[in-house]
Amino acid sequence: MTERFAFEVAARDGVARTGAIRMQRGEIRTPAFMPLGTAASVKAMRPESVLETGADIILGNTYHLMLRPGAERIQALGGLHRFMNWLKPILTDSGGFQVMSLAKLRKLDEDGVTFQSHIDGSRHRLTPERAIEIQGQLGADIVMAFDECTSYPASEAEARESMELSMRWALRSRRAFDANAEQAGRAALFGIVQGSTYPELRHRSTDALLEIGFDGYAVGGLAVGEGQEEMLRMLDVTVPRLPEDAPRYLMGVGKPDDLVGAVLRGIDMFDCVLPTRSGRTGQAFTWAGPLNLKNARHKEDTAPIDPACRCPACIGHSRAYLHYLFKADEMLGPMLLTWHNLTFYQDLMAALRDAISRRTLSEFAEEFRRRYSNGA
Amino acid sequence: MTERFAFEVAARDGVARTGAIRMQRGEIRTPAFMPLGTAASVKAMRPESVLETGADIILGNTYHLMLRPGAERIQALGGLHRFMNWLKPILTDSGGFQVMSLAKLRKLDEDGVTFQSHIDGSRHRLTPERAIEIQGQLGADIVMAFDECTSYPASEAEARESMELSMRWALRSRRAFDANAEQAGRAALFGIVQGSTYPELRHRSTDALLEIGFDGYAVGGLAVGEGQEEMLRMLDVTVPRLPEDAPRYLMGVGKPDDLVGAVLRGIDMFDCVLPTRSGRTGQAFTWAGPLNLKNARHKEDTAPIDPACRCPACIGHSRAYLHYLFKADEMLGPMLLTWHNLTFYQDLMAALRDAISRRTLSEFAEEFRRRYSNGA
Repeated sequence: MTERFAFEVAARDGVARTGAIRMQRGEIRTPAFMPLGTAASVKAMRPESVLETGADIILGNTYHLMLRPGAERIQALGGLHRFMNWLKPILTDSGGFQVMSLAKLRKLDEDGVTFQSHIDGSRHRLTPERAIEIQGQLGADIVMAFDECTSYPASEAEARESMELSMRWALRSRRAFDANAEQAGRAALFGIVQGSTYPELRHRSTDALLEIGFDGYAVGGLAVGEGQEEMLRMLDVTVPRLPEDAPRYLMGVGKPDDLVGAVLRGIDMFDCVLPTRSGRTGQAFTWAGPLNLKNARHKEDTAPIDPACRCPACIGHSRAYLHYLFKADEMLGPMLLTWHNLTFYQDLMAALRDAISRRTLSEFAEEFRRRYSNGA
Repeated sequence: MTERFAFEVAARDGVARTGAIRMQRGEIRTPAFMPLGTAASVKAMRPESVLETGADIILGNTYHLMLRPGAERIQALGGLHRFMNWLKPILTDSGGFQVMSLAKLRKLDEDGVTFQSHIDGSRHRLTPERAIEIQGQLGADIVMAFDECTSYPASEAEARESMELSMRWALRSRRAFDANAEQAGRAALFGIVQGSTYPELRHRSTDALLEIGFDGYAVGGLAVGEGQEEMLRMLDVTVPRLPEDAPRYLMGVGKPDDLVGAVLRGIDMFDCVLPTRSGRTGQAFTWAGPLNLKNARHKEDTAPIDPACRCPACIGHSRAYLHYLFKADEMLGPMLLTWHNLTFYQDLMAALRDAISRRTLSEFAEEFRRRYSNGA
């Protein structure tokens, strides 16, 4: 039997590193980008196609899945992997972030949060213990501690109070996880650093998590409106305090240039809705920057999005056809463009891994920024 | 260079036959089912996936394509095959049927029909000459004569008048087609039998088309509300008068049992919106009859739609997951179910071809009806 969780760094370039997380369901090459499989489906993609883009792991959302079809239903049907036919690793978030952004009538107390479903108004409750239990029912490989994502902007006092609550919840998450022998023997648990944009709070949060001990450490509460510069500054503050031998996960990030900046600062894992959501609204990511296929300038353009891209949208179809599909509201438009964007994100991660291996990351990053800002 | 158009019958069983149409872009095994690629996309399917289902030919709709993106645009972009990346044969309808069913403010005269686009209200005109020209601009392999699809029910006088107009238009279509050397040297032209439910009119229409001469003969004006029994009766009336050496195409049909009944009566080609449209609304076709995946009885069913089916929906996913995808309005539901339904239709056609080859069609049809009406 394969070991439960191992992180090996194969090469470093500055503080950036490339390597792999090994788990029972497969290897996750790092730096890794995790496509969003929010509601038990990477939207507009078959799981076989997600695999073809190069993804080693996807993310599932506890909040969505607990509401529909329900964690008990998924467990009874054999777990999330079997349910959605994705047999490689899955990371699930704890639900905390989406309770705050999607649910109605939220009420937070020391023990947890009560809220109403945005789908049917039904009442639900999440606590650290319940969030860990749900992630166990889903069968997640990487389980996230339950936290409160501090809203932005927050005063230092608000940020401290919120962070300290998250740290108490992190300890309860750890205990709940360890108390379930099946889950603790098979899955990994990550803690989440909070502290908004206050370096001192980020330090104290990191120290609190290290005291508890986790398989990996996520940086949360960023990409919530603070801007790229402030986000990268918080990584400069936070990452050096994180252990060298554990993966670091920047939650909810980001645009391609955010990923490059964060990898340069030692981040190993990312998730973001951008490639899939943009794919459904007509935005394509390319090495020469993003382009909007709904724009009339593409309507007679026989070139593909990117002649060097290996995805089915670029191999088979012109910008003119993709432009037309979005104008005609044909489902094939979102299908092809999601595939393209996920391919671009995976190819970007592969290029970053390669640059770190060759110790040419800073040149790669400089060249990437130059081309990316040129416009497609 | 391959010949322009050849139809070879390899085996017969009663009046049913199996064989192949050979054209420059490929061979069409008959009896054939043509998926609808209405607006330059088989909805929710990549062209590679349509090919995997076993389709040899798809249908494009002149009405939709002339309105958006426009026949001239598609021609400038290299034709419909290249535009949508489907390189096998395409049959295009003439637009007449959909002008009557979709367009606004239609005005019919001896020369043609003027109408307003259902998309943006813009004014357009179709005549036999223009319909043939558009199909040439699209690059269709099989071109349909421009006709008026007689509405149902129609009095015998109305049906006669409408049929006679269609026959005058059939002659004009033939002349327009032959006048374009490129089109006439590469594509095939089919005439369309009209005459509503009046045997005498069907005979006169058939005789008129035979007098003009076409590569193939379509039976039009059926599946418009007359019911299966009346439809099959009209085939009994019409098909025996059609030449043995030309393919016979029953337009807009149909349900699986309609296809079996029509093949038994000598039909070689079909098109229908049913497998693709039903796939988007949760209805799956199976050998044991249709089933609605939105039905609550599927919500905990770990079985696939059909364990014997070779499609990705059946290989990878449970009825419970498909049920969930439709409930959650995930795009993957229509994607998977469309693929399943098109696979079922192609497998049904393959089974019909096989039964004709073995001269066991009547046993096959009887067994099919027995299983199909049993319920899934």
